[in-house]
Amino acid sequence: MLSTMQDVPLLISRILTHGSTIHGSSQVITWTGEGDPQRRSFAEIGARAARLAHALRDDLGVRDDDRVATLMWNNAEHVEAYYAIPAMGAILHTLNLRLPPEQLVWIVNHAADRVVIANGSLLPLLAPLLPHLKSVEHVVVSGPGDRSLLEGAAVQVHEYEDLIADKPESYDWPELDERQAAAMCYTSGTTGDPKGVIYSHRSIYLHSMQVNMTQSMGLTDGDTSLVVVPQFHVNAWGLPHAMFMTGVNVLMPDRFLQPAPLAEMIESERPTHAAAVPTIWQGLLAELTAKPRDVSSLTQVTIGGSACPPALMKAFDALGMRVCHAWGMTETSPLGTIARPPAHAVGTDEEFGYRLTQGRFPAGVEARLTGPGGERLPWDGESAGELEVRGPWIAGAYYGGQGAEVLRPADKFSEDGWLKTGDVGTISADGFLTLTDRAKDVIKSGGEWISSVDLENALMAHPEVAEAAVVAVPDDKWGERPLATVVLKEGSGADFASLRAFLAEEGKIAKWQLPERWTIIESVPKTSVGKFDKKVLRRQYAAGELDITQL
Amino acid sequence: MLSTMQDVPLLISRILTHGSTIHGSSQVITWTGEGDPQRRSFAEIGARAARLAHALRDDLGVRDDDRVATLMWNNAEHVEAYYAIPAMGAILHTLNLRLPPEQLVWIVNHAADRVVIANGSLLPLLAPLLPHLKSVEHVVVSGPGDRSLLEGAAVQVHEYEDLIADKPESYDWPELDERQAAAMCYTSGTTGDPKGVIYSHRSIYLHSMQVNMTQSMGLTDGDTSLVVVPQFHVNAWGLPHAMFMTGVNVLMPDRFLQPAPLAEMIESERPTHAAAVPTIWQGLLAELTAKPRDVSSLTQVTIGGSACPPALMKAFDALGMRVCHAWGMTETSPLGTIARPPAHAVGTDEEFGYRLTQGRFPAGVEARLTGPGGERLPWDGESAGELEVRGPWIAGAYYGGQGAEVLRPADKFSEDGWLKTGDVGTISADGFLTLTDRAKDVIKSGGEWISSVDLENALMAHPEVAEAAVVAVPDDKWGERPLATVVLKEGSGADFASLRAFLAEEGKIAKWQLPERWTIIESVPKTSVGKFDKKVLRRQYAAGELDITQL
Repeated sequence: MLSTMQDVPLLISRILTHGSTIHGSSQVITWTGEGDPQRRSFAEIGARAARLAHALRDDLGVRDDDRVATLMWNNAEHVEAYYAIPAMGAILHTLNLRLPPEQLVWIVNHAADRVVIANGSLLPLLAPLLPHLKSVEHVVVSGPGDRSLLEGAAVQVHEYEDLIADKPESYDWPELDERQAAAMCYTSGTTGDPKGVIYSHRSIYLHSMQVNMTQSMGLTDGDTSLVVVPQFHVNAWGLPHAMFMTGVNVLMPDRFLQPAPLAEMIESERPTHAAAVPTIWQGLLAELTAKPRDVSSLTQVTIGGSACPPALMKAFDALGMRVCHAWGMTETSPLGTIARPPAHAVGTDEEFGYRLTQGRFPAGVEARLTGPGGERLPWDGESAGELEVRGPWIAGAYYGGQGAEVLRPADKFSEDGWLKTGDVGTISADGFLTLTDRAKDVIKSGGEWISSVDLENALMAHPEVAEAAVVAVPDDKWGERPLATVVLKEGSGADFASLRAFLAEEGKIAKWQLPERWTIIESVPKTSVGKFDKKVLRRQYAAGELDITQL
Repeated sequence: MLSTMQDVPLLISRILTHGSTIHGSSQVITWTGEGDPQRRSFAEIGARAARLAHALRDDLGVRDDDRVATLMWNNAEHVEAYYAIPAMGAILHTLNLRLPPEQLVWIVNHAADRVVIANGSLLPLLAPLLPHLKSVEHVVVSGPGDRSLLEGAAVQVHEYEDLIADKPESYDWPELDERQAAAMCYTSGTTGDPKGVIYSHRSIYLHSMQVNMTQSMGLTDGDTSLVVVPQFHVNAWGLPHAMFMTGVNVLMPDRFLQPAPLAEMIESERPTHAAAVPTIWQGLLAELTAKPRDVSSLTQVTIGGSACPPALMKAFDALGMRVCHAWGMTETSPLGTIARPPAHAVGTDEEFGYRLTQGRFPAGVEARLTGPGGERLPWDGESAGELEVRGPWIAGAYYGGQGAEVLRPADKFSEDGWLKTGDVGTISADGFLTLTDRAKDVIKSGGEWISSVDLENALMAHPEVAEAAVVAVPDDKWGERPLATVVLKEGSGADFASLRAFLAEEGKIAKWQLPERWTIIESVPKTSVGKFDKKVLRRQYAAGELDITQL
């Protein structure tokens, strides 16, 4: 028997209409690097999103399912594109500007983007690619930058502001199927071709509700959130959508992601919340240590992308910025867990331990652990297995390309449709996830697993260690053994034996897990999203490029 | 183009599984009137819900779409029924035990309930009805009460605890269509037959997410919520579902709804939140005045059902209990608005004004105002019209009965599918709703509308007025005029002229709106859910039963 409830689809246009009316006076503030930041109310964003949709449809001929790409920093125009494109029924495709050019070309061609909206400051990146982008007919340019770079390109070039100038400020948003494609984002896969995840209106709507739940990010219209996490990276963790649901003000750093301007915008705009990956935050800490600022407004920092080292978390606690871990990936929209300690632990010795986990699964995300032999493992906080997840904002496949079947590689999706995350960890009885490693980074030593991340965290707690990465290297006797690659702080005289002894102290690391192979490096290689790129280290080791000391 | 996201339906079984694992140690605490309350963890509730589902299916033969009714107070067993029945694919039908017996009979027969789960304490109500309940085959009895009342009834009688005793503690919950019927609730319509609203799994799931959003009730697992609002009344405002999503502890008063036990359970169990209608809370205030208790834990009270008089709100503020208005109805699941003042008003003179409104529409609830001539009215805080709402947890029809078409009466649903709420009010530019009246209670005087509620609130602010109800009565010259019916506090010597002068003070009420007709009554007649029953007053006036003074 069906219910008697209204059948109202969960659409991005509804989030836009809600935010631009009920929360019309909330603001998107974009840092401009000089003078006052740009301030635009949600009501203005709503009107400009409608104008953009008219321009895309009437002037550029964008139709259902057409892909409109963005090559943009975090700013108000990018928020307008976030709403206009899906709300009109087309598909927003955010391009990761940190990818190597050849990957960007591959991705644009695979997605068959018809339009690219680009920030002027990114034309030096875009212009050389244009001859290789087969499907792109239009480039729309927004913000400062040298337009002459596009001269001679075989595309139509438009000025964003000119294009939307005379368009109507409302749009009759279509009633779409909520399962329709709204946005797409390619994973920055380190092996094989990039994989495209296509979010639906439904998945984005539900994910946004979750972000707004009290035990999630839990922001209100009294908050201002500094969204450092890029809009080209998994919908900026859902924040631009979530905030239009609740009127949270948004502070967008545009291209000013260096520690000094970040510190400056925190001091002057006084955000209460920020979302970022740990590496950005590590730089900010150094900046604040060198040049203290009033950052007292910022009391909550959501950190994801990779785990926040405990030492960094404590340093931020000392500044009054409480770090809250979250875990997710492109395939999970991304919010998969968030580390709010349970009430019984708050104020006790247990609290910090809970905060170091990746967090608890919210309603809507189901989880299970699968052992090396495919067996289901218990939630006992001990049994480590690969995390698999299911839910309405979790991917069940990858985009196969226009007209092609979707892709369901067996290493990414289980037979019964769950996402295999490639992350290895444990789950406690009360649902807190602790990731110990990427499945591919775990060190398989003599039939046991050694977590590279545990070793890294223990090493980075040493006062003279700036960064450390541990990778598996082949070993005749044990199969694999850990190699410790260490970046020492300037002026440090620490030697490997003392570092090894530090790891062994008080049973931090079991004796059989202690690395024998050590090397000093200048910095840990990073991926385009700021994660340790261990593939590079393994390759350097295999090529004999690292100077190894055997203890 | 479809998305690549997983297609996971929003089901009540998923809320149950989440709550009974991730939040397994949270508790449902049921007041028993003597000794320790009953404490049951969410994990136990989950196991017992599974056992109940097995019993209903295997012993009672409950199948898809079968209606299983509950005639119960708020308690742990009722929470178990809330989950087991929809999760197994059947339909939960909560019976309003305050309805007149003949309406209950009508409702059970219309819904064609096959099973009734009843509290033992309600058998005196149920037993006399049984001969008239055509579809009921089984009665399951839970909790204390005289079973002999059921002797001779032509139904199978079961003990709840015996029935579920030996059943498995897990159940393979079916994957249902999320639009399938999950629960039904009949409106306590004061005119015509009661109307059944059928909630879907989807509507309940989405509504629960909304209840958990920070700007909604915004509770966490550190909270305990005293759920005074009955579970037989619109899903207890969604609290039992919402709490399994986030681990909020629940304090259930069972049948102990009198002011003294309520005060006692607040003092001893220290809830942080409560949800109730104003009349219950008015009684509690009198009790606390007569006999002070430590109620300091209770800092947030969600009040709905009808508006909280400003004087009552201030009295609770003085006790440290912050009242937050919410508005809704059976047809809206019920959360339609919630009165969290916008951040800019907090701490200012505007704040209390915002708190007196019915509140702001959350994302998911769309609203519009329709004037007497069917025209759309602006959101200007001035234009009063009938409120119409749309959204995924808003009813679009009523249940027509088994095999019958659904009902879409034109006075309840617009042609384009919006719910006509029958409430008259204004909406401010920032989306705050102020209800001035029920459409049927508005006094149409000389082509203008007079709000009966404004008059009542102004009257009830008088120190010697206990209660006041204002109704429209026919008037030869003006069409209708207000009649003021007043309950004076004990020992009051106030006369009508002084009350009228009080209303006229400082422009509280416009002169032309001041009532000429006055009468003293002993108490305002109430509906089964505690609202003023103005129909009764109008009938008494028409029958000449009231002693009217004309000023």
